[in-house]
Amino acid sequence: MKNIFAEIITIGDEILYGQITDTNSGFMSQALDQIGIKVKRMTSISDDEEEILTALQEAQQRADVVLLTGGLGPTKDDITKKTLAKYFNTKLVEHPEALQMITDYFEKRNRALPSNLRTQALMPQSCEVLFNRLGTAPAMWFAQGGKAVVSMPGVPQEMEILMNEMVIPKIISLFETPVIYHKVIKTFGAGESMLSQVIEQWEDALPPHMKLAYLPTWGEVKLRITATGADKASLEEEVEIEVQKVVPLIQKYVYGYDRDELESIVGDLLKSQGKTISTAESCTGGFIGHLFTKIAGSSAYYEGGIISYSNAVKMSQLGVQSDTLDTHGAVSEQTIIEMAEGVRKKLNTDIGVASSGVAGPGGGSPEKPVGTVWIAYADGIKTSTRKLSLTNDRLINIRMTSYIVLDLIRRKLKA
Amino acid sequence: MKNIFAEIITIGDEILYGQITDTNSGFMSQALDQIGIKVKRMTSISDDEEEILTALQEAQQRADVVLLTGGLGPTKDDITKKTLAKYFNTKLVEHPEALQMITDYFEKRNRALPSNLRTQALMPQSCEVLFNRLGTAPAMWFAQGGKAVVSMPGVPQEMEILMNEMVIPKIISLFETPVIYHKVIKTFGAGESMLSQVIEQWEDALPPHMKLAYLPTWGEVKLRITATGADKASLEEEVEIEVQKVVPLIQKYVYGYDRDELESIVGDLLKSQGKTISTAESCTGGFIGHLFTKIAGSSAYYEGGIISYSNAVKMSQLGVQSDTLDTHGAVSEQTIIEMAEGVRKKLNTDIGVASSGVAGPGGGSPEKPVGTVWIAYADGIKTSTRKLSLTNDRLINIRMTSYIVLDLIRRKLKA
Repeated sequence: MKNIFAEIITIGDEILYGQITDTNSGFMSQALDQIGIKVKRMTSISDDEEEILTALQEAQQRADVVLLTGGLGPTKDDITKKTLAKYFNTKLVEHPEALQMITDYFEKRNRALPSNLRTQALMPQSCEVLFNRLGTAPAMWFAQGGKAVVSMPGVPQEMEILMNEMVIPKIISLFETPVIYHKVIKTFGAGESMLSQVIEQWEDALPPHMKLAYLPTWGEVKLRITATGADKASLEEEVEIEVQKVVPLIQKYVYGYDRDELESIVGDLLKSQGKTISTAESCTGGFIGHLFTKIAGSSAYYEGGIISYSNAVKMSQLGVQSDTLDTHGAVSEQTIIEMAEGVRKKLNTDIGVASSGVAGPGGGSPEKPVGTVWIAYADGIKTSTRKLSLTNDRLINIRMTSYIVLDLIRRKLKA
Repeated sequence: MKNIFAEIITIGDEILYGQITDTNSGFMSQALDQIGIKVKRMTSISDDEEEILTALQEAQQRADVVLLTGGLGPTKDDITKKTLAKYFNTKLVEHPEALQMITDYFEKRNRALPSNLRTQALMPQSCEVLFNRLGTAPAMWFAQGGKAVVSMPGVPQEMEILMNEMVIPKIISLFETPVIYHKVIKTFGAGESMLSQVIEQWEDALPPHMKLAYLPTWGEVKLRITATGADKASLEEEVEIEVQKVVPLIQKYVYGYDRDELESIVGDLLKSQGKTISTAESCTGGFIGHLFTKIAGSSAYYEGGIISYSNAVKMSQLGVQSDTLDTHGAVSEQTIIEMAEGVRKKLNTDIGVASSGVAGPGGGSPEKPVGTVWIAYADGIKTSTRKLSLTNDRLINIRMTSYIVLDLIRRKLKA
């Protein structure tokens, strides 16, 4: 079986100026990876005819499938459609069905069709039009000599639905694809170099068709095993054997696999143990609550929380003693204990967790520099605390504290 | 003056597999843009010698500056350093100062230097070593024939400090750069096509050295004017004249400029009016609180909030009547009014805002489908409410609701 390669081209000055972050490329490459197609290269270029023509030509030489996003809007800087017509030596014609879709789109919203939007129904004559049910720009599928070029709108939601519902099925029907199998082991609380030392011997002994990669982010390291072969079932089995060897070496850091997220793992533990939880947040300001509630179904275990940003709210809503605040300050072990125990009692839950710290960039002192954070876990039997020394960056401190609190809950529930 | 072009190459299988989102490219291009260097192309490739050599060669043909990130870690899949040594036909030698930095890095953390980390001090002989004070991988600066190639670690924090403190100053001293001036007008609450119709005549009359782009995200559209010329002061003046013409046409949607964020604009308004605020969140689960508290200094106006995820918490902490919940449900105008007024009173603030909705994907009904959200704003004189009909996506609903609440606060404070 022949390997199928893809390239991704994202078009838009806003990407090159750094004004938006390109998340489309990642989504498309994940979707291609799922069907065994390897992305060789991702390229971002500007809304410029010459750039688009050159990049497309280069990509078509290297790859079987080229996916493009961006430049399909109704405004003057959007030139992808007419550039593709030029590239494929075809002309733009009004597409009756596309026009109908656009008209319906505005009718459903009780708005008149803006005159400039009629151009959205002009499509290159030689392409297959893929309809977009979220917006006014249809996608285009060009097939030529066993290769495909697909152009989609840059709005992530629109591209994602088009990929899932139309583009991926069409790619599968056009190519016979090899098997790539990934397994990701997710760890929290250990550094990359520490892990790599512990598992070095195992890594060196991996069979040649398997590859290991370390993907570190703040507090978390993902270990990705990638295996290539012809048969999915045997690859899965072979990788599973390796997973069984390596996980015992790093057991206490492993919180999950593949698409597991710490927030849903913690949710599953709470649900399976029938426990409820509440949050008392100072420096994290609601972010721990957000991590709980971004998971669908979290109402089964998450009751709610108090964002006690000011000392007044710490006292009035959580029952923190003014003496405690006066003597030890808001960022202290004594305060964090009263916060966690207070929210647990106030919201009548099995567990209460709390955060209080100097998120920065201001507010630090020699004794409590920026990045000093206290967290606590109260379950009615014992209240555990931990002092963290994080970074100088406010947002990183908020995020890291929140995930460290989740990991603390996980370890407590596992104990 | 000659235009200076740059290209950015990010290296890492994890990017091509879509397992991490590349935010480094955006940061680097913003930094280059600030000094008038235009990024022509961004490319992501895998940790593969051949790919790195080819991409680098191509980029060097088109650009004056090539920035690379990634592949500098201590693990086996990191091959950027030795590939660069090959590309520049030089060898790797142990760099005493680099070794010292790495040794110090571990000493400061009271940990022994892991044996595999000694290789981090091997550097290509012909490069200038740029030290990284956050991690163990130094950056490399190669200058050749008036062009530069810079290789930096892929960890965003490390790359950012290296860019700001060393790479950008070195680029400025190597090149004479032209002037590119951007002005971004930020709007909330109007769609791209609606805005483009309203300002079409103005857009058509823009002078040829100015370009307009629309950057839509959910609920928000940024209008970016880009002007190119020789002199910054006159560009600024010319762009300002255009801004003065266009803003009155779209006044009520404009919330700020350039790096203004809705959350800080709202914070500034609260601060300047000496008002305090609190939040009562159900479907947004703490995200509005997070938007307030991610802004440094928000303790001047944000007292805190109640995350009333369960009905029990809505009643016990906010004083919502059980009758109201029984008769109208948690997602209703009556409940949202009691929530906003309740938190305002309970936390003793000038303003209280609230959210309650069906975030999805489950929990919808014919009467209240997924995406139905109520928001409220209470200031002690009048309580205003708004019903939203959003999407089927849980996270988008959480984010959009939170930003629409911020925009509601902005409009109320401006009224």
